[in-house]
Amino acid sequence: MEISELGEFGLIERLTKDITTKNATTIRGIGDDCAILAPAEGLHTVVTTDLLMEGVHFDLTYVPLRHLGYKAVMVNLSDIFAMNAQPGQITVSLAISSKFCVEDIEELYAGMRMACEKWGVDIIGGDTTSSLTGLAISITAIGEARPEDIVLRSGAKPTDLICVSGNLGAAYMGLQLLEREKVIWSEQVEEARLGGNKEQMELLRDAQPDFSGREYLLERQLKPEARGDIIVALREAGILPTSMMDISDGLSSELMHICKQSQTGCRIYEERLPLDYQTAAMAEELNMNVSTCALNGGEDYELLFTVPLAQNDAVSALEDIHIIGYITDADKGQALITRDGGEFALKAQGWNPLEK
Amino acid sequence: MEISELGEFGLIERLTKDITTKNATTIRGIGDDCAILAPAEGLHTVVTTDLLMEGVHFDLTYVPLRHLGYKAVMVNLSDIFAMNAQPGQITVSLAISSKFCVEDIEELYAGMRMACEKWGVDIIGGDTTSSLTGLAISITAIGEARPEDIVLRSGAKPTDLICVSGNLGAAYMGLQLLEREKVIWSEQVEEARLGGNKEQMELLRDAQPDFSGREYLLERQLKPEARGDIIVALREAGILPTSMMDISDGLSSELMHICKQSQTGCRIYEERLPLDYQTAAMAEELNMNVSTCALNGGEDYELLFTVPLAQNDAVSALEDIHIIGYITDADKGQALITRDGGEFALKAQGWNPLEK
Repeated sequence: MEISELGEFGLIERLTKDITTKNATTIRGIGDDCAILAPAEGLHTVVTTDLLMEGVHFDLTYVPLRHLGYKAVMVNLSDIFAMNAQPGQITVSLAISSKFCVEDIEELYAGMRMACEKWGVDIIGGDTTSSLTGLAISITAIGEARPEDIVLRSGAKPTDLICVSGNLGAAYMGLQLLEREKVIWSEQVEEARLGGNKEQMELLRDAQPDFSGREYLLERQLKPEARGDIIVALREAGILPTSMMDISDGLSSELMHICKQSQTGCRIYEERLPLDYQTAAMAEELNMNVSTCALNGGEDYELLFTVPLAQNDAVSALEDIHIIGYITDADKGQALITRDGGEFALKAQGWNPLEK
Repeated sequence: MEISELGEFGLIERLTKDITTKNATTIRGIGDDCAILAPAEGLHTVVTTDLLMEGVHFDLTYVPLRHLGYKAVMVNLSDIFAMNAQPGQITVSLAISSKFCVEDIEELYAGMRMACEKWGVDIIGGDTTSSLTGLAISITAIGEARPEDIVLRSGAKPTDLICVSGNLGAAYMGLQLLEREKVIWSEQVEEARLGGNKEQMELLRDAQPDFSGREYLLERQLKPEARGDIIVALREAGILPTSMMDISDGLSSELMHICKQSQTGCRIYEERLPLDYQTAAMAEELNMNVSTCALNGGEDYELLFTVPLAQNDAVSALEDIHIIGYITDADKGQALITRDGGEFALKAQGWNPLEK
């Protein structure tokens, strides 16, 4: 169905008709000039926002709209968890070009709602409008936390242990895989077109590349999970990180933010970087340095945090958390110690192991 | 300066380096995964968001970036005031194509900051990214109010008086004026180009159309003001509206929202529609029905609200507020009474006085 058949209000009604709000703090969701929240007494509110543009942040050639919706919400929830807070509400604004039909936007919304349901988050409002080209998605997420529980980027202290959850570089490898298949597919289509081979073009239109054995990499790229489970595990273990942020731009870049804002240095160890087997295999196939991928890959949405040295045992006992180094005085700089004992300055992007 | 010279973090630093937060409820603004607010005890939080796309919501041929920034903020603050709440914070997300330079974005930000300063609003965060084409602006505004002060769209009761602030249709007339001059200018440029008249083209490049006597219409279109002053005046007069919303899509459309959500009808009087002299003069020049412009023009950002009949004297005593009709039972429908006593059903758009 064409979106113009419904109009703005019709589309909003269709997308939101069965949306109910579940959080006690949500007094009123969609349907007035503003949504209304009743913040719990004594808690602080945290707010984050992200703007995703087609062609810049996502490529609809290979990203299904349902996955895109899921990811768009998760990347915002990831920022809420990175404050050690609990997400409660989101607003969703969409700008939609004429190439999309109503069913497309329903798919996108289905993905967003799935992500919200996973973490008990209410969709409380937004804006739906048109775009001359492509799709724009703007999400604002709101959460809450006890003031004493909130973790900033600026609290790391020398000797604190540097920890990351999960593993690194897989989302980036997933992107490389998808981009490679896209190029191959485009070349095959072009070849069939030039040769006038209509039958081959038909076949290619419905072709699905064989990703067997690589499913994990695709999932990490297309359907990332915000690590609210890590926040719960830390709380249950009585561990309050001294600093924390989520890894969206890559470990190096995020660690440098923590060091800058905490006015510290750091030392991390290449051999400690947590890697999945599929990440390593794919990096080798692509002739890339897997550590570079882990350091600068981005989009992992894992948590990077620091804890006092005294909590070494407590944090080591937790599943899926890896100690990769420690915080130093600022004058020591930000260093990566390679497997062979070499020391390199961390760079925000494109760490080059050949550069001294 | 090219934006690529600074990069995302450099641009954000440059735009936000001298931004300070002033509200007691703002604990932390830009610089971490989330902003942090400390909601005042017992108050509710209200949240609204808007996504503005170049080519759909604004035309940079005639909209200066500073004005665009001002307006982008004001339209959000208008939604906060429409809840009878006080705005406190905004987040600002921008997607910027390569045609913009750093100074352009500084102009846009200057306008946004001017609007924030006017109403004591803090810029607490956002996202700055790139766009393949044009500019996208997504703003989320947060405000607060005592629960008992919040005014919804759904509280209007039969016999309530229907009031609007300011005057209607001027912003729409301003848009018509700008669009007309754009067409004239484009034709002159095309003529000069075809005639190879370089001198004329130079002159046209710097040409400023003569808008004298029409300044008010332009101001209403380019630099709208959210009516926080009306909220203050109502509060000081002890008047709590029974329903309220801001007029962004046009009086008819908004009044129908109030009637639908309050399950009422309404009667409004054409002769009561508040008009500025310039709006009437411009409508006549363009051979348009000025009442149609007032009913459906949009972008006035005035407040539409209802008050109990008993407050007739109190509301009549206030400056710049006009009683235009009253609320009826739902079965009476939504009616406009024309100057000659005719009765027409209100339509959400394009009211046609020739249709019975």
